[in-house]
Amino acid sequence: MNSFQNPIYQILHPESIAVFGASNNVTSMGTQLLLNIIDLGFRGTIYPIHPKQKKVLGIPAYPSVKKIPFGADLALIVVSREKVPKVLEECGQRGIRRAIIVSGGFRELGDYGRDLEREINSIAKKYKIRFIGPNCIGVINTHHYLNTTFFPYRGKTGFLGIISQSGSFITQIFDYIGRLGMGFSQGISVGNEANIDLVDCIEYLGDCKDTKVIALYIEEIKRGREFLRVCKKVSSKKPIVAYYVGGSEAGKKACLSHTGSLSGSDAIYNGVFKQSGVIRVYSIEELFDCCASLGTQPLLRGKKLAILSTSGGPGAATADSCSRLNLHVPELSTRTKNALRPFVPRTASMANPVDLTFIKEVSSFFRDIPQILLEDEDIDGLLIYFLRPKGGLSEFIENTGNNATTNELEGAEDIREHCRDLAILARSSGKPALGSMFSGREEPIVEELQDNGLPVFPSPERSARAMWALCEYARMRGESYD
Amino acid sequence: MNSFQNPIYQILHPESIAVFGASNNVTSMGTQLLLNIIDLGFRGTIYPIHPKQKKVLGIPAYPSVKKIPFGADLALIVVSREKVPKVLEECGQRGIRRAIIVSGGFRELGDYGRDLEREINSIAKKYKIRFIGPNCIGVINTHHYLNTTFFPYRGKTGFLGIISQSGSFITQIFDYIGRLGMGFSQGISVGNEANIDLVDCIEYLGDCKDTKVIALYIEEIKRGREFLRVCKKVSSKKPIVAYYVGGSEAGKKACLSHTGSLSGSDAIYNGVFKQSGVIRVYSIEELFDCCASLGTQPLLRGKKLAILSTSGGPGAATADSCSRLNLHVPELSTRTKNALRPFVPRTASMANPVDLTFIKEVSSFFRDIPQILLEDEDIDGLLIYFLRPKGGLSEFIENTGNNATTNELEGAEDIREHCRDLAILARSSGKPALGSMFSGREEPIVEELQDNGLPVFPSPERSARAMWALCEYARMRGESYD
Repeated sequence: MNSFQNPIYQILHPESIAVFGASNNVTSMGTQLLLNIIDLGFRGTIYPIHPKQKKVLGIPAYPSVKKIPFGADLALIVVSREKVPKVLEECGQRGIRRAIIVSGGFRELGDYGRDLEREINSIAKKYKIRFIGPNCIGVINTHHYLNTTFFPYRGKTGFLGIISQSGSFITQIFDYIGRLGMGFSQGISVGNEANIDLVDCIEYLGDCKDTKVIALYIEEIKRGREFLRVCKKVSSKKPIVAYYVGGSEAGKKACLSHTGSLSGSDAIYNGVFKQSGVIRVYSIEELFDCCASLGTQPLLRGKKLAILSTSGGPGAATADSCSRLNLHVPELSTRTKNALRPFVPRTASMANPVDLTFIKEVSSFFRDIPQILLEDEDIDGLLIYFLRPKGGLSEFIENTGNNATTNELEGAEDIREHCRDLAILARSSGKPALGSMFSGREEPIVEELQDNGLPVFPSPERSARAMWALCEYARMRGESYD
Repeated sequence: MNSFQNPIYQILHPESIAVFGASNNVTSMGTQLLLNIIDLGFRGTIYPIHPKQKKVLGIPAYPSVKKIPFGADLALIVVSREKVPKVLEECGQRGIRRAIIVSGGFRELGDYGRDLEREINSIAKKYKIRFIGPNCIGVINTHHYLNTTFFPYRGKTGFLGIISQSGSFITQIFDYIGRLGMGFSQGISVGNEANIDLVDCIEYLGDCKDTKVIALYIEEIKRGREFLRVCKKVSSKKPIVAYYVGGSEAGKKACLSHTGSLSGSDAIYNGVFKQSGVIRVYSIEELFDCCASLGTQPLLRGKKLAILSTSGGPGAATADSCSRLNLHVPELSTRTKNALRPFVPRTASMANPVDLTFIKEVSSFFRDIPQILLEDEDIDGLLIYFLRPKGGLSEFIENTGNNATTNELEGAEDIREHCRDLAILARSSGKPALGSMFSGREEPIVEELQDNGLPVFPSPERSARAMWALCEYARMRGESYD
C-alpha cells in the first residue's frame, strides 16, 4: 500500500484545515495550536471557525463550518468536550472526513467522558470520519510544514517518525532530538485512540517515504495480534524502536492513571517485541540514540568493532560498554596494524581500541586511520571518540597578547572539511560508524558530522549502545553473520 | 588528619611553582599548561625555567632552578622523558619536595621507560620528593585558582573531587559537568602512580573541606587492601562513586594497553566496592549524575518516592525507572490527597505520580504541591519533571504582531524566584529532591534550580538513577529505614 492510500495520510498532508477553538486570545490552547501551524509556515488554507470574530490571528474566520467556501481536508478540534459531538456532526455534514480531536476529558475522566467518547465514535462512524484523539496533542509533519501541537517546531526536516501515547514525548523533545542532529519527519500523538490507534499509525509510517526509522512510546498495546502482524511487516522494511514503560510495578500503575491503560508484564511485551522485530529500550535517551544510528547507518552485520580514540580512558570506556552489550572488540590483524603504523604517533597503542594518545596529523585521524579500520574485513563497524585537535589554542594565543582569530577560523573550516570527508568515507564503506564527544553542537566537529549523517553522541557509552541497536536490527532481520 | 598534613595538599595548594618545559612557543605542551595556570588566575609565584629566554609568556624566566630567588612549593615538569631525572635531581637539590611529572613515555612504553621510572623513583626517595605522575595530565584546584592541565577551566568553583586514571575524564568533561550545574573542587590525574597513587588521593580528598563527593575513574586498583581500608573510612564521611571499566573482556584488554593495568573481574571489584562503601556505576553519565545528587542532597533514608509531573508520559517514565532501580512509588495517603486537592486541576491524577496534566497556578507547582509531598511522612524523597509553564508564549504573541518582551522577561524573573523558593523548600525538608527537564541550562528553570542546589537532569530516567545513588549511600552507611 502507498502511504497516501492510508486514512492517516490526509491528516498529515491536508491542503485545508478547519480550526475549531482558536480565537484572538493568545492564551487559549486552540489559539496556540493555530499559532504553531502558522509558525511552521503551513502552505494550505486555514479556516478558523469562530462564532463572533471576523478574523482570527489575521485570517478570515467563519461563524460555522457550514459557511466555509470550499470543503476542508481536516478538522482540528480544540473545544470543550461537551461541544465536540456537535462540532464533529457539523464537520460530517460539511463533508470533512478527517479530524484531530485535541480536546480532553473523555474516557480518561470517568463515566461521563466515556459516554461522550462513545458518542463521537458513532458520529464518526455515521460520516465515515477517521480521527486522531481525543485527548491528544496533535500531529507534526515537517515535510508538509504542518505542526498542530502546543509547541513551536524550530528543528529541521528529518527522518524520524514518532508515535506516542504521551504528547509530551513528541513536543517536549523538539529541541532534544535536535541536539542529536535529528529532526522529525512526522509525529503523531495518538491520545485515547478512540478511532485511529497505534497500530494504524505504525502501518502508515511504515509506508511513509519521509520516515526512515520509527520511535514508539508505549503504555499499552490494545490490539496485540495486529501490532505483531503490522510490526513484523514494517520492521522488515525499516527499524522500529519502542520505549515501553508499563512493565514494572510503578510503571504499570502510572500508565493506568495516565491513559487508563492496562499494561502487561515485561515478559509478555518482550515476547511481542521480539516476535515483531521491534527493538525495545528502557529510556528516552536510548530511544532517540538508537533512532539516530538506525536512521543513518547501515546494519552492523557482525559483532566485531574497531574503536578509535585520542585517549585511553574514553577508549577503554567504549570497549567496556561494547563488551557489556555483547559486542566484540577483537585484536587487530598484523596487516591492519602494519597499515596503521605510518599514521599513528610513536606513543600510540594499536591494540583495539586504537589509542592515538594525541593527534599527530589531523588528516590521519579523520581519514587514513578510519579508512584502514573500515577496510579491514575482520571489522564490522567503527566507534570513534572525538577530541578537538587544537583545544582552545586561539585562547592561549590571545592570552599572550596575539590575535589568533584568523588562524582559528581557518582551523574551524579545515575541521569541517575533515568531518565531511570522514562522513563520506564512512558512508561509502558500507559499514556503520558512530562517534562520541563530550561536547554539543556548538562544537563544529559534532555539528558537521551529525549534519552529514554520522551521529555523534555525548558519551562513549551512548555511542556503544547506539551501535548495539544496529546489531539487534541486523539480527532481527536475519542479516547478521554472527 | 587534616588535609593540609597530607603530602598532596601542597601539590594542590602551592604558593610558588617552578615550571619546566614552558616556552614562548604556544604549540608546545608545557606552554599550554602554563597558559592554563595563568588563565585560571593563579595567585602565587611562577618561575618558568628556560635555558635561553629571559621571559616566558611575559613572566621572568630562569636558566636553571638553582637560580630562582626563593624556593618553590611545587615543580611542574613537562620535558622529554630523558630529561626528567636530571630535572628532578635539581629540584631535590634546590629543596623542592613536591612535583607533578606530566611527561610520558615511562612504564607504559616498555623496558627503557620502566628503567627511567625506576630512576626517578629513587631520586624522589633520596630527596623525599612526593610526586604525581609520570604520564599524567596534571591537577586542578578551583578553590586555589590552580589548573595545570591541558585545557582551560571556565567552570565554577565546586564540590566535586575527582581522581582519575585517565586525564581525559578530568579535562574533557570540564564543560560537561558544568551542564549539570557542577564544578570541580579538585581533580587529580594520577598517571602511572609511580609515587602518589589512587589510594593516597582518596585519603586526601576524604579530608579536603572543599570536596563533598568523590568521583573515581578506575582501570586498576593496585593496593587493594589499602583501597578498602581508606575508602571505608572516607565513605563514612562523604560519598565515593566509582566508574570501573576493567571488568569486561574488552575493557580489561583496553586497560592493559592504556596504562598497563591488570584489571580484575567484575565479581572481585564489586566485592571490594561493596565492602568499602563505594557506589559503582557503569558510565560517565551515571558517574556525574550520581555525584550531582550525592553532593547536594541528604540521604534517601527509605525507598518511597513521590513523583510530580506536568504530564503523564514523563511521570510514567520516571515511575518505571524507579521500579527498575528497586525504588517504590506508593499510593499517596488520603490525607495527602485531600491536602493536594485545592492545588491541582480537575483533570489531574493524584495517584503517584501526581500528574497535573497542566499547570494551573505556577505557585502551586513550585511551592504548595512539593511542600505537601515532602511533608508526607510516608514519602522519603521527591522527583519532579519540569515543564516551562508558558512555553514560548512571547513568540506566539510576537507572531501576531504584538511585542511581548516585557511580559516574557517578567515571566522569567518570576520563574527564577519560584525556583529559588522551591530549592529552599526542598533543602529545609531534610529529604532529597531531584528534577528532570528536556532542556539545558539555557532554560532559566534548569539554571536556577541547579545553581540553588537542586540538580536537574536531562531526562526522567537519569533523575531516577541519581536518586538511586542517594538510597545506595544511605544503605551503605546503615542509615536506611527500609
